[in-house]
Amino acid sequence: MTRWPIPLPMQRALALAREAAEAGEVPIGAVVVKDGTVIGEGRNAPRETHDPTAHAEIAAIRAAAKELGNERLTGCELFVTLEPCAMCAGAIVHARLARVTYAAPDPKGGAVAHGARVFDHPQALHKPEVVAGIGEGEAAALLRDFFRERR
Amino acid sequence: MTRWPIPLPMQRALALAREAAEAGEVPIGAVVVKDGTVIGEGRNAPRETHDPTAHAEIAAIRAAAKELGNERLTGCELFVTLEPCAMCAGAIVHARLARVTYAAPDPKGGAVAHGARVFDHPQALHKPEVVAGIGEGEAAALLRDFFRERR
Repeated sequence: MTRWPIPLPMQRALALAREAAEAGEVPIGAVVVKDGTVIGEGRNAPRETHDPTAHAEIAAIRAAAKELGNERLTGCELFVTLEPCAMCAGAIVHARLARVTYAAPDPKGGAVAHGARVFDHPQALHKPEVVAGIGEGEAAALLRDFFRERR
Repeated sequence: MTRWPIPLPMQRALALAREAAEAGEVPIGAVVVKDGTVIGEGRNAPRETHDPTAHAEIAAIRAAAKELGNERLTGCELFVTLEPCAMCAGAIVHARLARVTYAAPDPKGGAVAHGARVFDHPQALHKPEVVAGIGEGEAAALLRDFFRERR
């Protein structure tokens, strides 16, 4: 069986998710890429930082916007290991990210292909291209192992 | 005609919205209240801070969670001058805020009573009580004046 290799930005997002797990946080990682270069990255950290908004995507978007000195990440793309929630999908809209690639779907908390489907309403003032399933096996295994160890 | 007075936390949120307008930001303000005391406040600031997530609600929630040293704002309530967008509604869910009171509705970008209706899906793992319209006239006038001056 031949498998496509996981793109480097998603490999980096998976490494960040592993870092989150080691810190006792739900293992989710994200990076923002511009012209093939990572310009912002983040991992889940709400418990350590006492910040309910400290999701991987929010951290990566804030870092990238700071790096560019611009609240809009036009032409940039986000790689994240789990389907974004409503908060993160909303942040993706505000940042005007051109594309979002996520690894594992999240039927319980996702808001892209599930639930609020944030990009599918006219109130989303920007609609990114969405690619799902790249690195899904690895991302889902990280989450499964994390929650199994905690039960 | 008798009018109910605007509750003090919403008056503070309106003052924060005025501060945003003076700084050239869309005039939206928010405060988080616990047991009658403001424990976090914020105003819209994405342009100045180059941060697409720097909405009033996100700033107020982050400040309150830092103040309490807890990512969950259980039993706290949020007052904000405009109906929250998907990002902020998602943050409200993550923060477990007990109640959200907003002033003006936002048919174009709101995600509570419009569009994604973030609280109305099972993927929202917490559903706050929602009160709308308190201070609506004042909040809407601030936004109207702001956009009129910029046209």
